[in-house]
Amino acid sequence: MILINIGDELLIGQVINTNAAFIGQQLAAAGYELTDVITIGDDGETIRKTLDSAFAKTDVVLMTGGLGPTKDDITKKVICDYFHRELVIDESTLKWVTELFAARGMELTETNRQQAAVPQGCIVLPNTLGTAPGMWIEQDDKVLVSLPGVPFEMERLIKDEVMPRLHARCNQQGDILYKVLQCTNITESGLSDLLEEYESQLPSELKLAYLPKPGIIRLRLTARGDDPKALATTLDEQFEKLKQLTAEYAFTDEDIEMEEVVGRLLVKAGKKIATAESCTGGYIAHLITSVPGSSRYFEGSLVSYSNDIKRDLLNVREDNLKRRGAVSEPVVSDMALNAMGLFDVDYTIATSGIAGPDGGTPEKPVGTVWVAVATPVRLITHEFRFGSRMGRKQIIERAARAALNMLRIEIEKDLR
Amino acid sequence: MILINIGDELLIGQVINTNAAFIGQQLAAAGYELTDVITIGDDGETIRKTLDSAFAKTDVVLMTGGLGPTKDDITKKVICDYFHRELVIDESTLKWVTELFAARGMELTETNRQQAAVPQGCIVLPNTLGTAPGMWIEQDDKVLVSLPGVPFEMERLIKDEVMPRLHARCNQQGDILYKVLQCTNITESGLSDLLEEYESQLPSELKLAYLPKPGIIRLRLTARGDDPKALATTLDEQFEKLKQLTAEYAFTDEDIEMEEVVGRLLVKAGKKIATAESCTGGYIAHLITSVPGSSRYFEGSLVSYSNDIKRDLLNVREDNLKRRGAVSEPVVSDMALNAMGLFDVDYTIATSGIAGPDGGTPEKPVGTVWVAVATPVRLITHEFRFGSRMGRKQIIERAARAALNMLRIEIEKDLR
Repeated sequence: MILINIGDELLIGQVINTNAAFIGQQLAAAGYELTDVITIGDDGETIRKTLDSAFAKTDVVLMTGGLGPTKDDITKKVICDYFHRELVIDESTLKWVTELFAARGMELTETNRQQAAVPQGCIVLPNTLGTAPGMWIEQDDKVLVSLPGVPFEMERLIKDEVMPRLHARCNQQGDILYKVLQCTNITESGLSDLLEEYESQLPSELKLAYLPKPGIIRLRLTARGDDPKALATTLDEQFEKLKQLTAEYAFTDEDIEMEEVVGRLLVKAGKKIATAESCTGGYIAHLITSVPGSSRYFEGSLVSYSNDIKRDLLNVREDNLKRRGAVSEPVVSDMALNAMGLFDVDYTIATSGIAGPDGGTPEKPVGTVWVAVATPVRLITHEFRFGSRMGRKQIIERAARAALNMLRIEIEKDLR
Repeated sequence: MILINIGDELLIGQVINTNAAFIGQQLAAAGYELTDVITIGDDGETIRKTLDSAFAKTDVVLMTGGLGPTKDDITKKVICDYFHRELVIDESTLKWVTELFAARGMELTETNRQQAAVPQGCIVLPNTLGTAPGMWIEQDDKVLVSLPGVPFEMERLIKDEVMPRLHARCNQQGDILYKVLQCTNITESGLSDLLEEYESQLPSELKLAYLPKPGIIRLRLTARGDDPKALATTLDEQFEKLKQLTAEYAFTDEDIEMEEVVGRLLVKAGKKIATAESCTGGYIAHLITSVPGSSRYFEGSLVSYSNDIKRDLLNVREDNLKRRGAVSEPVVSDMALNAMGLFDVDYTIATSGIAGPDGGTPEKPVGTVWVAVATPVRLITHEFRFGSRMGRKQIIERAARAALNMLRIEIEKDLR
């Protein structure tokens, strides 16, 4: 398969091509081979030539970008020319776009209407997050998939519309099964050392991949072969081995986020939670509330960014603030314990740290974060040192996920 | 010019291709036109064919990656085959690599020694930050530049070694200048309609591009030509026109986030802020605190996710909650006004809405969000309807940026 990303903004480096990485991950996870990623500008002739050379090498070409309603977006016209088709209005898309504008109290202009125009005979992939639909065009045993370049619109279309259709089309290649195990509190190379022997004993039809993201390593075990039943058995066996070897670090064997793991545990335990955040600035509350249904277990958060708010609203002892500083064990302990009563909950998380780039000292360098987790019967504290060269957003993200992981371990203990 | 990035890790999306963006920026800033960025795997035959098709289109090809000492790095061999040259040891590189290893107290193995091997007759570009040197090869009026894929090594080589040589070889083809204007509260197609006439009157050396992200459209006006002074004047003139036409929607003419715009205004005004968040769940606080130095103006946030917390900690009137529901104008008004006193600040933002996927009703469908902004002298409220099919994360993100934009407008009024 070949991916073509269209957009002048990519060529001049104004936008980093994260779409290519996302699509590459999705295809690799499903066992498809992406051989080329080609970035070109919004130029009709270039797009046409690139399509030509791509289809000379492969049967399936994915394309992103150039589908907006504006002048510089010319992909649809080029596709019509290329496949000798007319541009026609797709009624279901027109209905969707019309409704979308009506819901926002806006009138549909002719430009908006053109968003519903697609090459005749293509399969329209509905874009529920925007106005430009995706398009799946088959001709002479070739497939062209054209998607909008806006990352979140493209991502949903890939997952919900493109992957199932690729699976249906490419079935003949044999089966691909995979399982995911997510680990934290260990580096990629640490995990690789731990699993060296395990990897070398894997049967040839199984492959282990390391997919790191900030603070988390996703392990993907992929099995590929012709006998789906035998394949599933082998995969299950080897996945169990993998789980045992990584028991200390693995936090879920599903492809979900840490905050969803924590949410499920809270529902299971029938318990409620609140957070008291300083350096994470509300990011933990945001992660928790990004999970649908989190109102069942999340009461709220006090983001106490200044020392005044820590003292006045969270009853952090002045003495602790003065003697030990805001980034200290006694202060996060006060925050976590007092938040319990304030929000009337069973568990709390508190954070205080130095996210940088300024504010570090030799004793408390940028990247120092104290986390406290209070449970009905325990108070656990931990000092993290994420390092000063990581950057503010990374430190906040790492601290939030590390804090959620501390909470996860405590709830799991209490559920036993 | 064409850029070829080599590396399996790029194709499977394990690494985001930031090298392409860096090189794109450097070339664009110097006025060179990059027409294609091609990512391929560590495969000799593919590299050879890609070189062939690239040199069929352009005289200058830049290449990154595949120069490391490991088995799958085969770029140098392919280059030798391609240009019919021998691989020879470059003495200055061998000296550098030997010294580097000696300084680390390590012995030089045969594999390390091969790092100093280069195609005969090439210009070696010394890599002061690593072991693999860059290479500049000229043959039959074509130039191939091969660089290591490690970003900081490649970046230094581009700046110090490649750009000066490109300038010496190529007659400066002209300059590229651009400016960015960011708009909100308008759709891409609405903006496109508004700017139809403007776009058609643009001189041919100027181009307008629409770069949407959730709730925001970035407009990039690019100018390309031979006379940098005249170009800058034309760009300035047309950019002023653009600003006037979009005055109602533009919130910054810099390439920064909404939360940074708000932060700068608060610093300028010498005022403080807090938030009281329900449906946004701490995301506004997170956006504000993701800006370095935000502790100067951000006191904190009360995320009041449950009605109990709204009533007990934010003094929202029971009567309003019961009669009008949590997602209502009186409730967000109570939240915003009472947060002023609680946090002792000059401005507050309050949100309450239905982020979904559940909880919608016919009167208050999913996507309904009430926002209140309290200032020292005013209370502003607004009901947003983001539409139910947008998805939870999108609704939270849109609501947060819309709320920050409401605040921005008020602070700007107060600063006048």
